[in-house]
Amino acid sequence: MVFYLIGLGLGNPEDVTVKGLNAIKSAQRVYLEAYTSILTCGKEALEEYYGRSIILADRDMVEQNSEELLRDAKKSDVAFLVVGDPFGATTHSDLVLRAVEQDIPYRVIHNASIMNAVGCCGLQLYNFGETISIVFWTDTWKPTSFCDKIDENLKRGMHTLCLLDIKVKEQSIENLMRGRKVFEPPRYMTSNLACSQLLEAIESKNSETGLTKETMCVSLAAVGSDEQKIVAAPLKELVNCELGPTLHSLIITGTLHPMELDFLKQFYPKT
Amino acid sequence: MVFYLIGLGLGNPEDVTVKGLNAIKSAQRVYLEAYTSILTCGKEALEEYYGRSIILADRDMVEQNSEELLRDAKKSDVAFLVVGDPFGATTHSDLVLRAVEQDIPYRVIHNASIMNAVGCCGLQLYNFGETISIVFWTDTWKPTSFCDKIDENLKRGMHTLCLLDIKVKEQSIENLMRGRKVFEPPRYMTSNLACSQLLEAIESKNSETGLTKETMCVSLAAVGSDEQKIVAAPLKELVNCELGPTLHSLIITGTLHPMELDFLKQFYPKT
Repeated sequence: MVFYLIGLGLGNPEDVTVKGLNAIKSAQRVYLEAYTSILTCGKEALEEYYGRSIILADRDMVEQNSEELLRDAKKSDVAFLVVGDPFGATTHSDLVLRAVEQDIPYRVIHNASIMNAVGCCGLQLYNFGETISIVFWTDTWKPTSFCDKIDENLKRGMHTLCLLDIKVKEQSIENLMRGRKVFEPPRYMTSNLACSQLLEAIESKNSETGLTKETMCVSLAAVGSDEQKIVAAPLKELVNCELGPTLHSLIITGTLHPMELDFLKQFYPKT
Repeated sequence: MVFYLIGLGLGNPEDVTVKGLNAIKSAQRVYLEAYTSILTCGKEALEEYYGRSIILADRDMVEQNSEELLRDAKKSDVAFLVVGDPFGATTHSDLVLRAVEQDIPYRVIHNASIMNAVGCCGLQLYNFGETISIVFWTDTWKPTSFCDKIDENLKRGMHTLCLLDIKVKEQSIENLMRGRKVFEPPRYMTSNLACSQLLEAIESKNSETGLTKETMCVSLAAVGSDEQKIVAAPLKELVNCELGPTLHSLIITGTLHPMELDFLKQFYPKT
């Protein structure tokens, strides 16, 4: 039998592929990976749509308890659902490798992920350089290493897709120290916060090249859903633009081709 | 009403999303973009699966005759199907802009494309630099400019996804000169040909840095379909590896992380 890794796409339950839906309906157990991304609709909407009950798989389960996940996958189909495409996050390669080690056949059912759906703002995927991640800063930890990667991309005229931090099942330091399995509410970084961290990073680095507060950037919210919203503006303005529900992503544009610029005009803030 | 741009994904008819399938079934006219990519299954299999007849849209139609494509889209839904995701190729942004100019609402239904599905070989999407295209060389035209982009990516330790040339509805020079609308059979570049062009480019450039015939590369055939095949080997070996049906893609690896290397071992040629 087969261990299925099934991409759910980005919007709502109907973004699953027909192939994926059939595999979900026929699987003996259905897991939903719930820590690298989320669907705005939530687990219950998926369960109702599939007519199946779903087991949430958190990071601990996927990284440290894969035996349970893969249990009986030699005898019956198991489906592992991932928002976007199954190969967006490293931990899933690890899971596949463990299936391979146990001679469990696996099959990937692909779907859109933010890595390609970002093309909906009209920026050409060919013109993107390295993708970066922007993490939540704390009072004492404000990494700016991503600025170097943005600068590298800008030097070559390339756009930069910034994936914004997601904190799920995090423990406060106090709860962690005391070993209490009490978790903070999930947090999803907004484009506004990402912009404000970028502006602070620019100030602190006094960067001569590359990113400035005038750089044209694009914020994307809830891509692929009915609530999708895209706004394009210079960084210093985008920081204040309302976007609506997370997940958000941010693009720092490089050299804009005329067609790209024409397309972006649709998304300028209404004044 | 709505002009739908619908991604079909990469494998067979069942790779359409449920949302996409519903839009296809309810649209008044259904076009299939037939020049930037193909589904191995062909148009007839799609028509049978959807229960709809499909109009093939070639490059001339999309680029120069969009009035016909968008006709009546204000009154009734029109579906424009694209293999992979709708925003892979520039010409589709152009089409969307023309819809916007005519106040025709459009909607994008995303799907997997080679740009993200390439993650199935275990190389992390975050570690890819700029994507390049490798075109068919002729006796008199052998561009090697893509080598510089590969080198730029390699310098930063990044992988390079190489999209391989597709020639559809090309005219021979004689037919072109005589204005005869007679077209050559479609050609899809194999990974083997791409490797052999790369090897020749390396020889001719005497490149000191970057790509060599020892560089680990990955060939992917028919990603997402039942015939999918992946082979990982040094460039000089990969040039001779059998892959099966096109479309093919090629990856030139940069710095390989241990998990990526472990994953690739599945795909070493059997000896």
